[in-house]
Amino acid sequence: MSWIVEETGFDPGRIATNGNKYMLGNGAIGYRGTLEEFEREQLTACTLAGLYDKVGDLWREPVNAPNGLSTRYYSGDEPLGLLSSAYESHGQSLNMRNATFCRETVFASLGGSRVEVRSQRFVSMKRLDLLLMKMELRVSEDGEFTVLTGIDGEVWDINGPHLEDSETVSAGGIVAVSAVTHELRRAVVVAETVRWEKAPQSEQLERKGSSIYRRATFLGKAGETYSFTKYVSVVTGDDRQTALAQAVSRTLGAAESTYEDHLCEHEAEWENKWEESDVTIEGDEAAQFALRYSLYQLHIIAPTHSEKLSIPARGLSGQVYKGAVFWDTEMFMLPFFLYSQPDVARNLVMYRVHTLEGARRKAQEYGYRGAFYAWESQETGDDACTLFNVTDVFTNRPMRTYFRDKQIHISADAAYGIWQYYEYTGDESVLLDGGAEAILECARFFYSYSYYKKEKMRYELLDVTGPDEYHERVGNNAFTNAMAKRTIGIALATLELLEAKYPEAYRELVDKLNDIDDLAALSHMHDELYVPSPDPRTGIIEQFDGYLKLEDVDLPTLKSRVLDKNEYLGGSSGLATTTQILKQADVVLMLHLLKDDYSLEAKRANWEYYEPRTEHGSSLSSCIYALVASDIGAPDWAYRYFMKTATIDLTGESKQYVGTLYIGGTHPAANGGAWMAAVLGFAGVRLHRGALVVKPALPQGWSSISLPMRVKDQRLFVTVTPTEVIVRAAAANRSSLPIRVGEEEREAEPGSELTFRYGSSERGDGLAG
Amino acid sequence: MSWIVEETGFDPGRIATNGNKYMLGNGAIGYRGTLEEFEREQLTACTLAGLYDKVGDLWREPVNAPNGLSTRYYSGDEPLGLLSSAYESHGQSLNMRNATFCRETVFASLGGSRVEVRSQRFVSMKRLDLLLMKMELRVSEDGEFTVLTGIDGEVWDINGPHLEDSETVSAGGIVAVSAVTHELRRAVVVAETVRWEKAPQSEQLERKGSSIYRRATFLGKAGETYSFTKYVSVVTGDDRQTALAQAVSRTLGAAESTYEDHLCEHEAEWENKWEESDVTIEGDEAAQFALRYSLYQLHIIAPTHSEKLSIPARGLSGQVYKGAVFWDTEMFMLPFFLYSQPDVARNLVMYRVHTLEGARRKAQEYGYRGAFYAWESQETGDDACTLFNVTDVFTNRPMRTYFRDKQIHISADAAYGIWQYYEYTGDESVLLDGGAEAILECARFFYSYSYYKKEKMRYELLDVTGPDEYHERVGNNAFTNAMAKRTIGIALATLELLEAKYPEAYRELVDKLNDIDDLAALSHMHDELYVPSPDPRTGIIEQFDGYLKLEDVDLPTLKSRVLDKNEYLGGSSGLATTTQILKQADVVLMLHLLKDDYSLEAKRANWEYYEPRTEHGSSLSSCIYALVASDIGAPDWAYRYFMKTATIDLTGESKQYVGTLYIGGTHPAANGGAWMAAVLGFAGVRLHRGALVVKPALPQGWSSISLPMRVKDQRLFVTVTPTEVIVRAAAANRSSLPIRVGEEEREAEPGSELTFRYGSSERGDGLAG
Repeated sequence: MSWIVEETGFDPGRIATNGNKYMLGNGAIGYRGTLEEFEREQLTACTLAGLYDKVGDLWREPVNAPNGLSTRYYSGDEPLGLLSSAYESHGQSLNMRNATFCRETVFASLGGSRVEVRSQRFVSMKRLDLLLMKMELRVSEDGEFTVLTGIDGEVWDINGPHLEDSETVSAGGIVAVSAVTHELRRAVVVAETVRWEKAPQSEQLERKGSSIYRRATFLGKAGETYSFTKYVSVVTGDDRQTALAQAVSRTLGAAESTYEDHLCEHEAEWENKWEESDVTIEGDEAAQFALRYSLYQLHIIAPTHSEKLSIPARGLSGQVYKGAVFWDTEMFMLPFFLYSQPDVARNLVMYRVHTLEGARRKAQEYGYRGAFYAWESQETGDDACTLFNVTDVFTNRPMRTYFRDKQIHISADAAYGIWQYYEYTGDESVLLDGGAEAILECARFFYSYSYYKKEKMRYELLDVTGPDEYHERVGNNAFTNAMAKRTIGIALATLELLEAKYPEAYRELVDKLNDIDDLAALSHMHDELYVPSPDPRTGIIEQFDGYLKLEDVDLPTLKSRVLDKNEYLGGSSGLATTTQILKQADVVLMLHLLKDDYSLEAKRANWEYYEPRTEHGSSLSSCIYALVASDIGAPDWAYRYFMKTATIDLTGESKQYVGTLYIGGTHPAANGGAWMAAVLGFAGVRLHRGALVVKPALPQGWSSISLPMRVKDQRLFVTVTPTEVIVRAAAANRSSLPIRVGEEEREAEPGSELTFRYGSSERGDGLAG
Repeated sequence: MSWIVEETGFDPGRIATNGNKYMLGNGAIGYRGTLEEFEREQLTACTLAGLYDKVGDLWREPVNAPNGLSTRYYSGDEPLGLLSSAYESHGQSLNMRNATFCRETVFASLGGSRVEVRSQRFVSMKRLDLLLMKMELRVSEDGEFTVLTGIDGEVWDINGPHLEDSETVSAGGIVAVSAVTHELRRAVVVAETVRWEKAPQSEQLERKGSSIYRRATFLGKAGETYSFTKYVSVVTGDDRQTALAQAVSRTLGAAESTYEDHLCEHEAEWENKWEESDVTIEGDEAAQFALRYSLYQLHIIAPTHSEKLSIPARGLSGQVYKGAVFWDTEMFMLPFFLYSQPDVARNLVMYRVHTLEGARRKAQEYGYRGAFYAWESQETGDDACTLFNVTDVFTNRPMRTYFRDKQIHISADAAYGIWQYYEYTGDESVLLDGGAEAILECARFFYSYSYYKKEKMRYELLDVTGPDEYHERVGNNAFTNAMAKRTIGIALATLELLEAKYPEAYRELVDKLNDIDDLAALSHMHDELYVPSPDPRTGIIEQFDGYLKLEDVDLPTLKSRVLDKNEYLGGSSGLATTTQILKQADVVLMLHLLKDDYSLEAKRANWEYYEPRTEHGSSLSSCIYALVASDIGAPDWAYRYFMKTATIDLTGESKQYVGTLYIGGTHPAANGGAWMAAVLGFAGVRLHRGALVVKPALPQGWSSISLPMRVKDQRLFVTVTPTEVIVRAAAANRSSLPIRVGEEEREAEPGSELTFRYGSSERGDGLAG
């Protein structure tokens, strides 16, 4: 039961959000949760990971492939479809366990016949180019009905059209649409074939523009089931003919197996995924469901097959945010994969290695050295972020924003991600394969960006934008400075490791980054980089220079000043810019990431200070407030924020517009944040100085939370109850791992099960106010 | 003829601009050029220099005194006045030579009688508290007429009311209005008495609110003249009773002399002023007139009597710009006074000494040391500039601006002014009286503000706003950096001078500014402060880091994007902010101030680059383009900009609004700029390394320009013709002065007359494009 997302009835107002909610995907292809008769107006999309296109001066964004699942039905001549026809019932569901989508609709045709339509589809997790759909139709009265099924070449684009020179092809039972992208002339081919269970009365091809359909007519017998299976292959490549040939052969190859066979191998993949990652909660069905759904969303967009891909901020749910990869991946999604699927985690961090040249180009463009990663990264690592990224609702003019220029913490996030991967896996190869170089280049960038304040004998980072994007171009953002310092620390540790264990690689790297003085300077900068610290009196860490002098208005008052519901609160002149209202966790995020550097009192003081001032205008915010609430012993607050982040794509209740810009889509960072809040927060499981530390803070009513995990290539299974922590180490493990709960530390030997009791005195007294 | 500003007829649409154009003043009081029957709706104002008031959260601004010249007339019961009555003729004029204003109106009364009203008034340049007006009335038919004359206590305020607890007083033929200011409870008293030439039939007092009038009725005989004189004294002070007593006694004292006697001593003062300052142009009446008018405007607002006053950006023409002193004084007005009236110049620079504590407080407020002068300075030197200084026309919200926070060049301007005074006068007392300390504090401020870029081994000035206010918060604004370097150079020269000649003062100062390391650091910073230099290829000096990467749009295109004629082009999101369009001379101003540091080629390249990109949204801009045009041999361009700056208050054609803010008033910086363009530009007269250098660039058609001047306490009279420079040194001079024209240098001995011929080859070939 808790595996099924479903609803009955049809609300046209929810088409866009349901497109996100019922999404399918396999990391290579994202297929939105629309119905098979929908078209581009309903935001139907088959989004391709890692293939981008740019038309003229418009934004560069991912390419949507022609829709190979497109299918319409007719009762006699009457078109049937939820948008236009009467229907008796409609239901749709997503089975997270095996990642299949079903719809079941009973149409009431004008001729009086009830037409039942059932379809099930999936995007194969085994064959990443493959989409399959099985359909069943039944009529209540004898009569002719028609199925129009094929490939819809009229794709939804935000800044398109991206596909040009479309050709429709038909041969040997296959139909295909072949096109090339505008910018890079990359081939995109979708091929399809159909296996009818009962042969249609007649079947003929229809071409219209870039679409191709087969029109199959049946003399329907009342009560009989007419079913068929669609096999669709999506192939991209440099050469159009090769791609077409591949698509055709893969489709034909696929059609040699039944739908059920394909489903079976697909399910096996999913079974394995869930085994490695499923977090089970006892005592809270709603939380269990929302958390599992969050993991589902992460799985369908995870690049299991390529280290040149990462995860875009809106996953594969379309072209929003240019299909670009943000810091979201490292900061909000990576931990889930680190714990459950280190191979995917490796792909994600290697993406930064493969885009290092783009980051170097960006640094150079701005006059810096080292690596300044793209704020919005696509396949080359060049920055897709535009200088005018929001439109002013009052003047309809593009608004200059500084996401691209000033959000320098992105390079710290990238380096931190690589190092996290190394720490959790112990896999040094990632460093040798380019990770070390990327880390060092990030550190060099911070040195190059910094200024020295002679009077105060310290380095500072000026003119930056922190996570709180409502305050652009500030000085000494605490988060940014702390993370830059951490990056330099990581760089120094990397050098030490290489020098000790891989002297040749060390030598090569130092020779390559030949401004040797930089590397010497890093140690000095690490000591003297200014990081704002808690005020001795109040404990407050000022978010940036001068933050506390800004207007200290409360959120309802700020909102009461809003003149247009879509007006942007940040940017050049947004309402929040001159106040202390922040968009999202900033100092508090730092307290999460660097939790060992701050006292409980400091964390509490800052959580209490910043929480009421946070607008949560970003979906990245709630999970962090949940995490730090757990840390400071406020599980009720943590629970509230956890549920907010875990249900974001279930409810569809998120900002859909900033200015005039549509920003809808899925929220993988929030999905990853839900996992973080549950595992790092409530279960409180993390690696600390080589030991697995468990510091639980379970919400009211949870009788347990359990998770499988991988640490340093050892498999563990951790269960946390309100009084106990139980750790089982897999028998196949090749070494032991120290486990610490409270003051108690024991070794988890292979095959062992350790039980720790922990006191409720660990739990805090809650928060004031 | 060329001394009289006049017009006939009456255009209600010009009341506000005529209030500026026909202004009177004496440096202590400004009296707007409105008519005596006008009230606050017509922006009548008697503005007091140096007395400020603040009400609640409104802007702090100067206080307007009750109008002691207020007078209305009645023919029988019919009120006469230009705003409401029929009139046969009207004329008004300003005599710049003796600073008197006249009006002459013939009203056509409903009863059929023509009523002639003549008045003349002046603000005494001899007795600075005194205003006088003489009136004459004549009727064409026998009949009763009434004069209502007294003190109008209903003053015009922008952010008032500033005067409280008003009392009207009458005793011994004197009427008075006494009040106190809201904030500081300073007394403001206006006393008045009238001397009737023919006694009225009846006379009685009328009080209404804070006003007091005498109503005098005459049985008018056709053709006879009825005249009277008003004596008005304006006194401020700490104590209300004392101020009242003073005002009464001064009014009575004044009334012991005739109007003509007062006029005579007033004229003597003005005669002297013109003798010391009048610049005569032969061959161009229009230029002569406009230039003289500019000098007139400067004289009426110059503080001759106090070194605690400077000149507000809108002179004494009301409360616009908070009556505050800007950099306008040092950069645009000071040179005129330096050349003509060094005592006034000394007052102006000493004002910065007296406001040093305010500048220290401001530096401290922002976390710096030294002196950060107020962007908008009032009597204490605390900054009257608000953080939200413009209102957004689209949202009607206050817009965050950074004039106050970031226009750090103000401290360079102040130090430069003090040093200019010292250089031109040789008067070291100004340094010993606090000028040296102010200079050093400005230099220390720049050190404290600076950052060191280790990679580039240089100091930088980040996050500043240069003269081009359309680009806020930029890095390394060329003007700011160059002027900061100049300030540090001045500070080092000051220390050297003191150490050599005044070792005790030197010791005292170094002890006082006890962070001795600062002073040592100054020399280092002077060597290593980055100043953007001309691009070797193009000669262009980039206005600030990244300026040349901004959109290079032309001015008409930019203007075509304007949606609201009053929208502000700068600030957070103004149209110019993301383009290369600048508000006013910035790099070009630097090329004027530091003209010896740049080649002719560099000046030409930058003038040509920046001129078409300059919006001249500030009245400070045109004169600078005129000056540098003269310098690079483009006198036609120089003339065009000179005439624009010299006629600004004659035509009234200037920006009246920025956003929703009224910014009308006089333009003393433009007035001073007109003098600079004529004397420093066309005549090309300046001091350079101890010699008076003359490098003329006369406009077409000018047969000569002549001026008296004072240099190092020696009096000279310089005449420049198209072929000759003639310098006469006063016989009373006590030393000689080297004079240089082209390559030729000769000593001007006391009483001598030197004639230099100079070649027309000196004149440039004009500009491309």
